Amino acid sequence: MKRLSGILILFFLSINGFAQFVDYVNPFIGTTNFGTTNPGAIVPRGMVSVSPFNVSGSDLNTYDKDARWWSTPYSWDNSFLTGFSHVNLSGVGCPDLGVILLMPTIGEVNADHKAYGSIMTNQEASPGYYATDLEKYGIKAELSSTKRTGISRYTFPKGKSNILLNLGLGLTNETGAKLRIVNNQEIEGSRMTGSFCYNDGSERPVYFVARFSKKAEEFGVWKKMPEMQAESAWSDTDGQFKYYKNYTQELFGDEIGAYFTFDTNTNEQIIAEVGVSYVSIANARMNLNAESNQFDFEKTRLQAKEEWNNILSRVKVEGGTEDQKTIFYTALYHTQIHPNIINDVNGQYPAMESFEIRETKDCNRYTVFSLWDTYRNFHPLMALLYPQEQQDMVRSMVDMYKESGWLPKWELNSKETHVMEGDPAIPVIVDSYLRGLTDFDVEAAYSAMVKSATTEGKKNKLRPDIDYYLNEGYVPLMEEFDNSVSHALEYYIADWNLAQFAKALDKKDDYRKFLNQSLRYKEYFDQEFGMIRPRLANGDFLQNFDPKQGENFEPSPGFHEGTAWQYTFCVPHDVKGLTKLMGGEKKFVNKLQMVFDKGLFDMANEPDIHYPFLFNYAKGEEWRTQKEVRRLIDTYYKNAPDGIPGNDDCGTLSAWVIYSMMGIYPVCSGDTDYAITSPVFDRITIQLDPEFYSGKTFEIITHRKNKGDLFIDKMMINGKKQNSYFITHKAISEGGKLEFFIKK
Amino acid sequence: MKRLSGILILFFLSINGFAQFVDYVNPFIGTTNFGTTNPGAIVPRGMVSVSPFNVSGSDLNTYDKDARWWSTPYSWDNSFLTGFSHVNLSGVGCPDLGVILLMPTIGEVNADHKAYGSIMTNQEASPGYYATDLEKYGIKAELSSTKRTGISRYTFPKGKSNILLNLGLGLTNETGAKLRIVNNQEIEGSRMTGSFCYNDGSERPVYFVARFSKKAEEFGVWKKMPEMQAESAWSDTDGQFKYYKNYTQELFGDEIGAYFTFDTNTNEQIIAEVGVSYVSIANARMNLNAESNQFDFEKTRLQAKEEWNNILSRVKVEGGTEDQKTIFYTALYHTQIHPNIINDVNGQYPAMESFEIRETKDCNRYTVFSLWDTYRNFHPLMALLYPQEQQDMVRSMVDMYKESGWLPKWELNSKETHVMEGDPAIPVIVDSYLRGLTDFDVEAAYSAMVKSATTEGKKNKLRPDIDYYLNEGYVPLMEEFDNSVSHALEYYIADWNLAQFAKALDKKDDYRKFLNQSLRYKEYFDQEFGMIRPRLANGDFLQNFDPKQGENFEPSPGFHEGTAWQYTFCVPHDVKGLTKLMGGEKKFVNKLQMVFDKGLFDMANEPDIHYPFLFNYAKGEEWRTQKEVRRLIDTYYKNAPDGIPGNDDCGTLSAWVIYSMMGIYPVCSGDTDYAITSPVFDRITIQLDPEFYSGKTFEIITHRKNKGDLFIDKMMINGKKQNSYFITHKAISEGGKLEFFIKK
Repeated sequence: MKRLSGILILFFLSINGFAQFVDYVNPFIGTTNFGTTNPGAIVPRGMVSVSPFNVSGSDLNTYDKDARWWSTPYSWDNSFLTGFSHVNLSGVGCPDLGVILLMPTIGEVNADHKAYGSIMTNQEASPGYYATDLEKYGIKAELSSTKRTGISRYTFPKGKSNILLNLGLGLTNETGAKLRIVNNQEIEGSRMTGSFCYNDGSERPVYFVARFSKKAEEFGVWKKMPEMQAESAWSDTDGQFKYYKNYTQELFGDEIGAYFTFDTNTNEQIIAEVGVSYVSIANARMNLNAESNQFDFEKTRLQAKEEWNNILSRVKVEGGTEDQKTIFYTALYHTQIHPNIINDVNGQYPAMESFEIRETKDCNRYTVFSLWDTYRNFHPLMALLYPQEQQDMVRSMVDMYKESGWLPKWELNSKETHVMEGDPAIPVIVDSYLRGLTDFDVEAAYSAMVKSATTEGKKNKLRPDIDYYLNEGYVPLMEEFDNSVSHALEYYIADWNLAQFAKALDKKDDYRKFLNQSLRYKEYFDQEFGMIRPRLANGDFLQNFDPKQGENFEPSPGFHEGTAWQYTFCVPHDVKGLTKLMGGEKKFVNKLQMVFDKGLFDMANEPDIHYPFLFNYAKGEEWRTQKEVRRLIDTYYKNAPDGIPGNDDCGTLSAWVIYSMMGIYPVCSGDTDYAITSPVFDRITIQLDPEFYSGKTFEIITHRKNKGDLFIDKMMINGKKQNSYFITHKAISEGGKLEFFIKK
Repeated sequence: MKRLSGILILFFLSINGFAQFVDYVNPFIGTTNFGTTNPGAIVPRGMVSVSPFNVSGSDLNTYDKDARWWSTPYSWDNSFLTGFSHVNLSGVGCPDLGVILLMPTIGEVNADHKAYGSIMTNQEASPGYYATDLEKYGIKAELSSTKRTGISRYTFPKGKSNILLNLGLGLTNETGAKLRIVNNQEIEGSRMTGSFCYNDGSERPVYFVARFSKKAEEFGVWKKMPEMQAESAWSDTDGQFKYYKNYTQELFGDEIGAYFTFDTNTNEQIIAEVGVSYVSIANARMNLNAESNQFDFEKTRLQAKEEWNNILSRVKVEGGTEDQKTIFYTALYHTQIHPNIINDVNGQYPAMESFEIRETKDCNRYTVFSLWDTYRNFHPLMALLYPQEQQDMVRSMVDMYKESGWLPKWELNSKETHVMEGDPAIPVIVDSYLRGLTDFDVEAAYSAMVKSATTEGKKNKLRPDIDYYLNEGYVPLMEEFDNSVSHALEYYIADWNLAQFAKALDKKDDYRKFLNQSLRYKEYFDQEFGMIRPRLANGDFLQNFDPKQGENFEPSPGFHEGTAWQYTFCVPHDVKGLTKLMGGEKKFVNKLQMVFDKGLFDMANEPDIHYPFLFNYAKGEEWRTQKEVRRLIDTYYKNAPDGIPGNDDCGTLSAWVIYSMMGIYPVCSGDTDYAITSPVFDRITIQLDPEFYSGKTFEIITHRKNKGDLFIDKMMINGKKQNSYFITHKAISEGGKLEFFIKK
């Protein structure tokens, strides 16, 4: 982030007649249809986001976190608000965080969120800002944030007004909190988080300090008392919330909170600022002191807006509809939420897999790596648009290896959550390296990769089923619904990337070894079906094979979250080889086309996300890519709350649509070429980072005769004819101009 | 305690042939029959006691804290042990404390006390020592303590052995704890306590640091996870204990704990030491460092034994049976448990009714004042035997007034719990003052008393119903089962004491004013029944009056925990006046005798506890006192677990039997004379404190012709005939010899 103060700031802002970039962000996109984004206030890669929390406590809500699998603090479909949570995940498929809730109320204090919750009306959101009215109380709540603090402005009616801090309610399934009222304007505490995807082992407390712009007339804490048996006859608070007025010692427990009561005049505004840290309360206070604008809400809001405008200005799109621009910039906005920083202003952060405190000096430490998703397109996009950030992410990943002995897979707040499979840090790091982001501890990274690619299974944290894979070349189906094939397919991609890394580092033996291993996906190829098919330990293919089994997240033998159809083309590192296995380009194309035509493709999950670009590998069939990609964009991406086809997966579905709308797509991590398709916009200008790339712009200009024209007639690169439907990263990063001439 | 190092130490120990005093203590006395004492290890007035906790988690137990009103961590009737709690109340009628449980187990760690609990066998207890075998595990557990630390020695079998620290389970109805594993030998934390007698407002955390003599091979923490609804399908730990191996951050929650696992050899002993503080974890560590004998269990045990021997040596009894001596010394032991110190080794303690930290310099700060009980006989006994301690207690009470604005009533850990009624600090302080314990802030004490005796009801914390009392002289019955008469009777006694104090301080107007008020008990005297009878606000006596209503703790209009019979003679400050009201001595004596003969007397509660001594006020009827007192001792006090007739009430029932067995009893606080009855022992030697009294001994020698002889024939004081059946405090404190000549 720090480098943003250089030449890139306001690059496009002065251009005539163009609205601000932030005006094309609709934070409500993805807030239903399981996109699992939230409209809360956040700055780019902020540790803190302040999100409305409306997924608990009322039948008025369509979705309740306690009534089903639910992974976001907010749903567009819901209307019953129970507070504003200060640490949140966006676009993920599992519950965690969603804690440190502030809630304004009036009148008598009630700690029960079922009772104090309010219908929300007049919602409004833009980058770094969210507002809603609380119908029940006549309160307006507005939110903004800095990197490590949340700020809330509540406009109260006249009378007794309260700010509740609820540390019981949360999206995480972990419980337990402590708090201490410091004085009538300040409170500090901690809340347990973890259990991401219902896995144990990822527990970590988050610390906070909250301050109010006004001294409270009254304050106190509360605690939900356990249900008693016989004793309930004598206790007034049996199973109830018990209030401890003026309590200023530390309070700990499962469902605790605090209240601050103010005498307010009509429309009196009270500001709350909350500093957060994953290191300590002292650091949370330090973060608050460093980033606070002394309760100046407007200043903070403007700062956040400018920060967003700057970050979004790396790409300028022109032409296209207002909705298409909004889809594009909202997607770009969604790629700037995770990974987020975890280091405090002094550089301190909790080390991977321990409670040791480390300090980062010259770069940010990032967290929330959903790598099985993001390695496919998100990190290549970050490498292109935000190479400094991407390089810092690589550094963070290598540091995690140094701290814990293993690269991350699905890392959350310096804990491995063991979600999904494979060895996805390898393609991320290799891809970045090959794109020129090389300022990290390359040897350590290489060692880390070799370790997971070669360590025997029982000692291998990332590839527990590696033994058979190394010996026989595939992972056999050992249980009815294991994910053996999915595991192996990821290992092949990782090993192919590792081979490319070895090659780049001139380690020829390793290159050959890992390349060979990466091609053993062929063990799964079954000539009978012409598909990838699970195999057993005895070498046989799985009997009673149903290539469609596994749709809609149903279990499927060998495949994780998908069908054999959705995995069969998941060999992006050897499309040519797969084509050969299938009997040549014609058969390959027909089979791939059938996947689309028969509705076997899933836009909402990652294994087949690159499928539409695979037609580019068959000469003369590139028009199919252009057709399918545009159809998918138009069908699944909208300027509406249901505008993301499924879990955004920390920006992966967003990265897909960004690339697709720009007309380029990184089919295979570690292969730095982009497949080309027909862009949505008339002009796309990418500002290239001068420290990593040319510092020039790369323009993608599209000439259409008629508005609806879709298919590429011809292409020019820097004035010369471009014949290939692939373009190198190098060609782009050097700057220049790619022109499309589109026909009907 | 500090003064004990002077001349008093070992005073009697060298006397030929006499067993050690501690040999006459049976800590199991009072551990059933609702005595509510526990056999845990404690030193005199220790902040810490380590008690077996066996009142939860199994149908094998007769009494379960969750199945009924239950106020002690231990019952003799129970056999299912779930740990050893480190802060405990003894002899009280309400649940609180009983937290910081250590439990040794073997094999796989299980945090559920219902599962990890064990049958206890071979229990053994003596002052400062407790031992039991854990049948389930083949573990021997031994406990001892210092003032502020508990020490446990566990003898394990060969294999994996665990020490569990359970911060979930407790006797208190408050929940919530935090802990942090410092290293593989140390853990620190805090546990919420409070809700004494199911009252809110007495919450306070207790802090601890625990250390083990051996480094643990493994450690971790646990937390009981909440019951989920729909999500239970995906969570392994839904509603279960979840374990966090190697977790070294702070953990907070309702049901949390920690485990330390050791590889042990056959009969390997591991020692655990736990330091406690009500100020902070830092102070708990300081207390531990200051008092620890570096895991030397035997040294700690011996120290505790010697401390007990010293404290018990203030009175030596000879003659009587071994059981009688055991009843006597165990009662004396029970008077040395509460009040207990709350100040840390550096003098710090939490101020009354706040979380401010204060420091006591030249005396101990005491806590656990059950004053409605203890003012009657316990504090006079302390003033006689342990005047320094009693004076420090008075200072503590006056400091509580200075800190909070009010004297205490039922104080627990610097919080007023509002249990029982009246203004009982007044008689305690006045009685001590009149016995010569005058080194406290007398003016502040006097101001405090006048404040509660005169402040209007709505501002009066101690006497909320004072307004009518001041105007009309009595408290009217306002609700069906209020305790109006009980309140007023206590106010009369307090005001009579305040009058004596005023007289001693030469405040003549106040003397007359408060004396007059104290005599208005007569407003309640109903000539129809010849009894105290509730009155209504209109002046009428209560209709449908049943003088026996209220037996066995049933509700009774106007009376708290008793019948009109048990309160009618509760005018100890004006027995002569009451006699007159009743129509003279003969009628008084007949009525009083009827109370005993018809079983209307309750030995297990305090309002009538002085009744048997009231016959001394009718000349020629003193034999009835001698008869009834001896009958009550022989009937209700035993060398057996059921050897206390009811709640010991922080030593009140114990003080009753100590006095009664010595042949003297303080009928009315503030009247320093003792009523005389026939002693149980042949020779009683009281060592008088040289700083407060003469430093000599006072001997009570009893000459009996035959063993069963009971009645006093004649008495000699220092060789001269004693005619009165009362003896002054002064006569005793000067030292000398009282001789009884007993007839059949």
